[in-house]
Amino acid sequence: MSKAKTAITPVRAENYPEWYQQVVRAADLAEPSPVRGCMIIKPWGYAVWERVQSVLDGMFKATGHKNAYFPLFIPKRFLEQEAEHVEGFAKECAVVTHHRLEAGPDGGLVPAGELDEPLVVRPTSETIIGEAFSRWVESYRDLPLLINQWANVVRWEMRTRLFLRTSEFLWQEGHTAHATEAEAREHTQRMLDVYAEFCEDWMAMPVLRGRKSEAERFPGAVDTLCIEAMMQDRKGLQAGTSHFLGQNFARAQDIVYLSEQGEREHAWTTSWGVSTRLIGGLLMTHSDDDGLVLPPRLAPAHVVIMPITFKADDPDSVLSYCRKLADDIRSQHWLGRPLEVELDERDIRGGEKTWSWIKKGVPVRLEIGPRDMESDSVFMGRRDKSPKDKESIGREQFLSNIQSILEEMQQGCFDRALAFREEHTHDIDTREDFESFFASPEGDPTPIHGGFARTHFCGDRQVEEQIKNDLGVTIRCLPLEGEDDPGTCPFTGQPSTQRVTWGKSY
Amino acid sequence: MSKAKTAITPVRAENYPEWYQQVVRAADLAEPSPVRGCMIIKPWGYAVWERVQSVLDGMFKATGHKNAYFPLFIPKRFLEQEAEHVEGFAKECAVVTHHRLEAGPDGGLVPAGELDEPLVVRPTSETIIGEAFSRWVESYRDLPLLINQWANVVRWEMRTRLFLRTSEFLWQEGHTAHATEAEAREHTQRMLDVYAEFCEDWMAMPVLRGRKSEAERFPGAVDTLCIEAMMQDRKGLQAGTSHFLGQNFARAQDIVYLSEQGEREHAWTTSWGVSTRLIGGLLMTHSDDDGLVLPPRLAPAHVVIMPITFKADDPDSVLSYCRKLADDIRSQHWLGRPLEVELDERDIRGGEKTWSWIKKGVPVRLEIGPRDMESDSVFMGRRDKSPKDKESIGREQFLSNIQSILEEMQQGCFDRALAFREEHTHDIDTREDFESFFASPEGDPTPIHGGFARTHFCGDRQVEEQIKNDLGVTIRCLPLEGEDDPGTCPFTGQPSTQRVTWGKSY
Repeated sequence: MSKAKTAITPVRAENYPEWYQQVVRAADLAEPSPVRGCMIIKPWGYAVWERVQSVLDGMFKATGHKNAYFPLFIPKRFLEQEAEHVEGFAKECAVVTHHRLEAGPDGGLVPAGELDEPLVVRPTSETIIGEAFSRWVESYRDLPLLINQWANVVRWEMRTRLFLRTSEFLWQEGHTAHATEAEAREHTQRMLDVYAEFCEDWMAMPVLRGRKSEAERFPGAVDTLCIEAMMQDRKGLQAGTSHFLGQNFARAQDIVYLSEQGEREHAWTTSWGVSTRLIGGLLMTHSDDDGLVLPPRLAPAHVVIMPITFKADDPDSVLSYCRKLADDIRSQHWLGRPLEVELDERDIRGGEKTWSWIKKGVPVRLEIGPRDMESDSVFMGRRDKSPKDKESIGREQFLSNIQSILEEMQQGCFDRALAFREEHTHDIDTREDFESFFASPEGDPTPIHGGFARTHFCGDRQVEEQIKNDLGVTIRCLPLEGEDDPGTCPFTGQPSTQRVTWGKSY
Repeated sequence: MSKAKTAITPVRAENYPEWYQQVVRAADLAEPSPVRGCMIIKPWGYAVWERVQSVLDGMFKATGHKNAYFPLFIPKRFLEQEAEHVEGFAKECAVVTHHRLEAGPDGGLVPAGELDEPLVVRPTSETIIGEAFSRWVESYRDLPLLINQWANVVRWEMRTRLFLRTSEFLWQEGHTAHATEAEAREHTQRMLDVYAEFCEDWMAMPVLRGRKSEAERFPGAVDTLCIEAMMQDRKGLQAGTSHFLGQNFARAQDIVYLSEQGEREHAWTTSWGVSTRLIGGLLMTHSDDDGLVLPPRLAPAHVVIMPITFKADDPDSVLSYCRKLADDIRSQHWLGRPLEVELDERDIRGGEKTWSWIKKGVPVRLEIGPRDMESDSVFMGRRDKSPKDKESIGREQFLSNIQSILEEMQQGCFDRALAFREEHTHDIDTREDFESFFASPEGDPTPIHGGFARTHFCGDRQVEEQIKNDLGVTIRCLPLEGEDDPGTCPFTGQPSTQRVTWGKSY
């Protein structure tokens, strides 16, 4: 059988990293910028981010959080307050040292007005928000304090990839303070659950909920919970983290409250975040060799209507039919919002037009010409079917079915992704099996192999480091569901309390 | 008559600038941060900004714009491309020169990893977005290109005031490219009209639409249109600007398209923005000596319910009554959104609780105790009436009337502000009258005086500069409505084509 023609070259099996870049480009999601490591998020990519923001923001508010906004700049001394934290972020941060440019000796502009203290562009805001919390929290009545911020952050990355790892990215960061350890731990878990619910119900991306090993923990945290997803190259993607910070930051920053008993106590804090990285995860979970596939719940447009007027006696009547149809679709609410429709009247070839929407991942495409109008029907293509597999259905029937079609496609995205993850997740009990599971097939520059390996593990940090160096494999997480399942570590023969999940990762 | 007790000290008439700071604090809108010139926008202030964003974003989308996101950093050479532009912004910008911190000789951290080229934290994004446009625009089919960005920007201000002038602020910046001058000029005007509509219909803040004099123009623009509002100290506030950039940036950045006739042409561009400064304007337009007054359409909460249970035999039944009432209010949609209700169950004194919501500007307050419950009624206070002027009305009646109450309050805000502006706007025809209009009453440290003076003006830039130096008064705008009304300039005796509006300003 000859190879089917695809919209994306190379296909996933040939060169997955390059396929990823090509899908981003073909869907017009984002592009590199002339500023090292920073990306430009183009309108279609930003529209997906707006959907992500809107849903998550509602979930944060429903769990009692309020949004606020804190400074972009962090004074150097703030970053220095928590030892592990500064260690983790000082190596890769943008440092502001001057506050103007002035003409230099050769006529060009040079930095001038040196600051007394350098400012760091926030890589994360525990320190600057903690300072505010130390002033906002006085008594137990002020707790819990539940704050979220939508913001840009900067971490000076040397090797960047659109959405997955960029020097500047957009994210939300939640920061909370609580009166007791138990309450703070519970909140850390609650927000992990919010993330997992969002990823599974909205992004149709199944995630493992787990705990990070000590080596992978957030700098300054006592405990880092995470959600991990498997991409189609079987690598893991850390999709979100929720940190229990204990009293580390509260002690460093003097976040103290007067308890009901009149005692001065340090608060217990948490922080948690997800970023534009999610869009990379969305892409790699669902897309195919024809481009982006959007789970309908996060699609900026659910339906695109393409009028076909070149053979029409009366093009205007076809356009009117299409506009009326667009209005009828928009008048339907799905999940609390009007259905979104693009009406594409661009004067370009029909094939080019159709493929542009396939590559952008719009769930449902309608091509409508004079004959469809005459028979009061629509000619429908679905992103979950072959590009050539289209069907004619009555307009009324389409209007009654569109929501169930979208629900079916949403479920299909999730089911396929879950089946894929399960297929490539294995319990492994010997070092030999582990090594051969992750060993690269020889001679293939971009092999897709391996997956998630679940092994017992004794917890030895040096062993973990050795495996990372030898195989490029890390502990993605200690799954929360698998706790309390004793066994023997295949690497050391030592006892283990649970299986951990290993994988290569982004 | 003895002075009435007010929640804010000092009152407006005593010390307006200090009153402003105290209202910001009493309403818990924002606070200074430990980072020079940067503010922390607290949840109540941020919630107002979210309302502003949500309405404006809808208006931008309805006029065909799409959101995107561009890098925070601008390479120095980009800023240098447009001569006036760099002149305008180089003097006050945050400059990133290093990309990490490392241990210095005395153990503290010092900047390291010097960049080859300094980066400027964006003060505005014409240059970085123009670079993208130069790649995105190829043919006339790509025009108009209508993009908006929600972002933070930094301008290193020496004298800052919360919301009105801060080193970092939040804003939106629209950037568009067009095929013809006429179309770009029309778009510049269209977006000014969008801003004016937003300010008047949503913020209840009347604005003058006008053109900036050459001296006040945006650096790099051919023409700057603006909206100007009068605050309660009779000073002007520039609330938004819309710039016609001609081909200045297109030439500097090579934004070129192939016309229908196959010619290579420079595009015509526009940019326009409003910022968190609007919240300062909102505050100064409507607030009174008891604190913030929110026009209902932008209030984060329309109604606050305060259960009064301390004398109740059955506090739980009062709470249930209140919760049911909150749900009934929330089930009503107003302007496409559910009505927002705060149910304040805090265990603090009733007076303190009531005053906290007065100071936050919530339009309608309901105090509900056992007797209100028994009579199936609510005890209502309105932010546009005296704090003591409350009335009992039936619950059902309240529920049927709440939307018209809010509309009435919204209209009242606008009408009062318009009457105030008209009262303090005068046509002035001699230099003597002009000087005495703006002269400070002697002996009063914080006088409220002057207003908007409408005079003819010959357009001489030196005269304008002299008046600014002598009186601290600038041309707020050349009103668009007053064009083509010839007369004589009172300062030079030269002919004038229209009256211009002068004022002191923020």
